[in-house]
Amino acid sequence: MAAMNKGLLLVLSAPSGCGKTTIVNRVMNSLPGLVFSISHTTRQPRLGEIDGKDYHFVDKDTFSQIRDRQPSGFLEWANVHGNMYGTSVEEVDRHQQAGYDVILDIDVQGAEQVRSQANPVTIFIAPPSRHELERRLRGRGTENEDTLLMRLDNARKELECATAYDFLIINDRLDEAVESLRSIIIAERSRQRRTPAGQSMQWGF
Amino acid sequence: MAAMNKGLLLVLSAPSGCGKTTIVNRVMNSLPGLVFSISHTTRQPRLGEIDGKDYHFVDKDTFSQIRDRQPSGFLEWANVHGNMYGTSVEEVDRHQQAGYDVILDIDVQGAEQVRSQANPVTIFIAPPSRHELERRLRGRGTENEDTLLMRLDNARKELECATAYDFLIINDRLDEAVESLRSIIIAERSRQRRTPAGQSMQWGF
Repeated sequence: MAAMNKGLLLVLSAPSGCGKTTIVNRVMNSLPGLVFSISHTTRQPRLGEIDGKDYHFVDKDTFSQIRDRQPSGFLEWANVHGNMYGTSVEEVDRHQQAGYDVILDIDVQGAEQVRSQANPVTIFIAPPSRHELERRLRGRGTENEDTLLMRLDNARKELECATAYDFLIINDRLDEAVESLRSIIIAERSRQRRTPAGQSMQWGF
Repeated sequence: MAAMNKGLLLVLSAPSGCGKTTIVNRVMNSLPGLVFSISHTTRQPRLGEIDGKDYHFVDKDTFSQIRDRQPSGFLEWANVHGNMYGTSVEEVDRHQQAGYDVILDIDVQGAEQVRSQANPVTIFIAPPSRHELERRLRGRGTENEDTLLMRLDNARKELECATAYDFLIINDRLDEAVESLRSIIIAERSRQRRTPAGQSMQWGF
């Protein structure tokens, strides 16, 4: 069915340390028809990064041209420490038209921009508690105390936006979180959208 | 989580021969927290039927008293060949308060009544085609030609109402249909409802 219909647009947000990457990778490995959108960025490629795979690496002029395209060049974009990042409408649309469900891994501000332009299915992944998030971040062993406190503070701010999402997955047990995300995607593929295309389905009756 | 929150109200409709019973039984066997609502009826118990398990068998006066209860005694009710059938609000509410997701197996008219009173998740199970439905009904070997044509005609009428449902499952391959229904239920458990209760969740941040 996925190949016959336009794919879904899925927006996924989570504070750092909530296990989002692990959950998404497990779901993508077990469920066909999903692709990650590749962002455009003006930052320099890091060692090993491939243009068109990790990012579309573009210069600032090209980024601005896409951003200013009408009706809309980017579904969402942001300036992070002087580097521009954006999700191009064309990139997303091409995958959706080919029947793929497109996953956007973006923060709460990006999600808000996408909501204002498109009709995404939005999913927020949250830690079971501050205490548990702190434990996981410390478990990485890569954070100094300042970075840790900043991440916890960011998490608190992002969690304030969680109620704006369609779905909330509490990553308490990983297997259950994976099944929840997988189920949301399968379920949304069966959801009827009140569009002319959605109503033209024929059963041969 | 299911035990901590009020359960979902799930309305399931399908024309005869679409495999609904098989699909629901498989899902209930693999997913905890689901119960069927037991209907009230004024018809006589058949051999082997148990009061309070198959139906709540009541007389016509009792049925009328429940039906006329304000604000609402039945979520939906119908007169079928002179026998009354109904789903009592009290029965459904008791299960939901205990954290169970309640499945109502009702037709398109019943679904419409429930929609007007409550906020159910509605799911329609459809055959892949008229041809395939006819093949399955003939395969039962229990239908004469008149009954068969009546069932096909009913199916056509019910399919006209399918677009009013939140989800449409085409039962082409049984395993996929089972996974779709299971996924819809799991996903809806993660859906955020814009209610005060839904927003009161605390993460301890």
